Amino acid sequence: MARSASLSGYLELLPEERLVELHVLDTLRQVFESHGFASIESRAVETMETLLGKGEVDKEVYAVSRIHADDAAKESKLALHFDLTVPFARYVVENAGYLAFPFRRYQIQKVWRGERPQAGRFREFTQADVDIVGDGALPFRADVELAVVIARALEALKIGDFQLRINNRKLSQGFYTALGLQDAPAVLRIVDKLEKIGADRVKQELAETLGATAEQSAAALALAQIRTEDVSFADKVRALVPGEAPTELMEEGLAELTEVISALNERVPGRAVADLSIARGLDYYTGTVYETVLFGHESLGSICSGGRYESLATKGKKTYPGVGLSIGVTRLVSALIGSGALSASRSVPAAVYVTLRSDADWSAAEDVADQLRARGISAEVAFSAEKFGKQIKYADRRGIPFVWFTDDEGRHQVKDIRTGDQVDADPAAWTPAPEDLAPRIIGNTDAA
Amino acid sequence: MARSASLSGYLELLPEERLVELHVLDTLRQVFESHGFASIESRAVETMETLLGKGEVDKEVYAVSRIHADDAAKESKLALHFDLTVPFARYVVENAGYLAFPFRRYQIQKVWRGERPQAGRFREFTQADVDIVGDGALPFRADVELAVVIARALEALKIGDFQLRINNRKLSQGFYTALGLQDAPAVLRIVDKLEKIGADRVKQELAETLGATAEQSAAALALAQIRTEDVSFADKVRALVPGEAPTELMEEGLAELTEVISALNERVPGRAVADLSIARGLDYYTGTVYETVLFGHESLGSICSGGRYESLATKGKKTYPGVGLSIGVTRLVSALIGSGALSASRSVPAAVYVTLRSDADWSAAEDVADQLRARGISAEVAFSAEKFGKQIKYADRRGIPFVWFTDDEGRHQVKDIRTGDQVDADPAAWTPAPEDLAPRIIGNTDAA
Repeated sequence: MARSASLSGYLELLPEERLVELHVLDTLRQVFESHGFASIESRAVETMETLLGKGEVDKEVYAVSRIHADDAAKESKLALHFDLTVPFARYVVENAGYLAFPFRRYQIQKVWRGERPQAGRFREFTQADVDIVGDGALPFRADVELAVVIARALEALKIGDFQLRINNRKLSQGFYTALGLQDAPAVLRIVDKLEKIGADRVKQELAETLGATAEQSAAALALAQIRTEDVSFADKVRALVPGEAPTELMEEGLAELTEVISALNERVPGRAVADLSIARGLDYYTGTVYETVLFGHESLGSICSGGRYESLATKGKKTYPGVGLSIGVTRLVSALIGSGALSASRSVPAAVYVTLRSDADWSAAEDVADQLRARGISAEVAFSAEKFGKQIKYADRRGIPFVWFTDDEGRHQVKDIRTGDQVDADPAAWTPAPEDLAPRIIGNTDAA
Repeated sequence: MARSASLSGYLELLPEERLVELHVLDTLRQVFESHGFASIESRAVETMETLLGKGEVDKEVYAVSRIHADDAAKESKLALHFDLTVPFARYVVENAGYLAFPFRRYQIQKVWRGERPQAGRFREFTQADVDIVGDGALPFRADVELAVVIARALEALKIGDFQLRINNRKLSQGFYTALGLQDAPAVLRIVDKLEKIGADRVKQELAETLGATAEQSAAALALAQIRTEDVSFADKVRALVPGEAPTELMEEGLAELTEVISALNERVPGRAVADLSIARGLDYYTGTVYETVLFGHESLGSICSGGRYESLATKGKKTYPGVGLSIGVTRLVSALIGSGALSASRSVPAAVYVTLRSDADWSAAEDVADQLRARGISAEVAFSAEKFGKQIKYADRRGIPFVWFTDDEGRHQVKDIRTGDQVDADPAAWTPAPEDLAPRIIGNTDAA
């Protein structure tokens, strides 16, 4: 990606780069579907009220308006969606009568955020979301399953070593309450800045904003430093809380996090840690929260994040609690391409370039190509009967590995233009080596 | 589709409807790739200048702006693209140095038009485009090949009988000039209204606007009534022109149209007619123009349209002539779903629902599911060990055809909940019938 985008923050891929993205999208789709997730898409626009009612990204929203709106007053104010969770919640509420719950869906679409563009941050990007939503209730096991599905999906991408970092909002909130800090969301927001501003300033803010004592601040910071691959985090948390404190909510969170970590250790060993510093910015999470680090690409931040939400989707007294995870595909793909971690073996689908002896042979050449296509071999036919050398050069320049010749007697030959080998071939039977059939995605996990 | 959209003009599909759309998109992708077309995507937004410089849809453009744009003055005015041709032309010019020409690409994306919503017209819809673009020149054979590719793609969709209707701008323009009507684009625009306003008013407008004589008007209308499945249109056209008229451009158009129609009659018999009434509104077409009618769905208008453009993509003295066709996927899919012409055999990917005897069996049940998934069989595991009757009912309600049981001794059985048949099964070997493996798309071409 030597080119720079003609519009800042908007990435456009070259054909060979797009193949890497397609590999990622196809793989995710395959894994999601194999676990029973159905595809949906939602419209790109939402009413401004829907968007601004949720989340915290109001300043990043792109408004949309018809430039010649003659009935502006009658139309709702619209904006491009900035994630796929809020639109999905609306979709579920609107279509609840037509869906079977628990409803499992994946959704792979562009989203838009008017953030200041910078390296790896885009104003338009593709997200791949998986969510499970229940009608009124959703078993906690959904939180476990979703983490397993995402771990399997990331493994299938062959992008190198990664780790899910998991926490639980009930645990944090219960813990702060047990410490005597009543405004748990405020504590979360301040402690979440730990990496940015450091421990001293976090303590200072906790004291100034919430009146926290030195002991409370120390305990809050100690919590954020707990990170275990097994379930030993639970006892470490309990050791930080005064013996007489009420800990019901905290224990609920500890039990949930224990269940997730145990199950992941069994089903996808080495892919998850309990990391009690994970907070996730969005207000709607109520239990499990997930982030994911891709080793060697730590500067990307979390490549896959999400959590449990109890009341994002509601209609009157009805609620549709859910749990979801979202992969930031564009940021991931652009990093993997940029570092050379993933690349395509060629930029065009065609495996065979069928040459022309004379312009009148075009239809016969298309017959050859159709026989190949019918057997899953992508083929392109020359437009005109230029000198063979020129036709071969054309195929070579485009990265098409094989060139097909038919002589006056109808005898067919195929040439591998990389080796120069030329052999007799039958259009109804000849098949390239599997690695030459379609563009392959080549992983180089050493590149980081 | 009993539901009505919550936002007028914005279609959202239910999971089983989305499967029909995915079938269409996957099939198009497969056919396009088998003919050597590479995938690209362009950003959803273009600068206003790029969009308004081309085409004729300015009043339909959706402007996009950050709601808190602090640097509005410095940012280009942006709008959502209304087709994929104009963005593709920009992409080609910007990336010409990185592309191998003739460049063949397909592009399947959403586009937006602020048109007044009505039945079958949407403000957001998916287009599937194929184009071939040359550097400086593009052989006419590209026009032939593209029509063949689209015919093959539409055949692969199994949506019933269709016909490409093809004309040539050089032919029409040369013909009008030969008649002595110099402003050929104006004649085209007026004759294009034939179906809407009738022959008398077309004659009247030709006379009033362009000063056409009765003979000229009659000849112009006669041209628009020529429609032949073979190449006999050429002599019919020549018969309408005074013997002494200069007809060089017209003959060029006749030769091109003859080549397209001959080739299509040979390669995809019955799929194309020369229809000299086809004009296509967009100004940038310069030669071949295509429309496509789907029989039984004539009210949809053209389901696939396009043409040859010589100078859509230009940079300084460099031009990238191209030829392209675009399928209006959303309108087509919504009509095919609405009429029952295409439907999905079930709404969920899962073929097997793995039940739980006890909550502690979840991981063992996931092991069973993983063995199935590894062999391409989508499987879902119950969240909790409810009564078997309830678990079966759950699978049934979601349309999952098979339910899996494992007893205390680890003996596996699988039940077809449609027939009630229950048999011993090995998770490493059992396979459903091919028609039950994944949701199938069922065609009913009688439905129109």
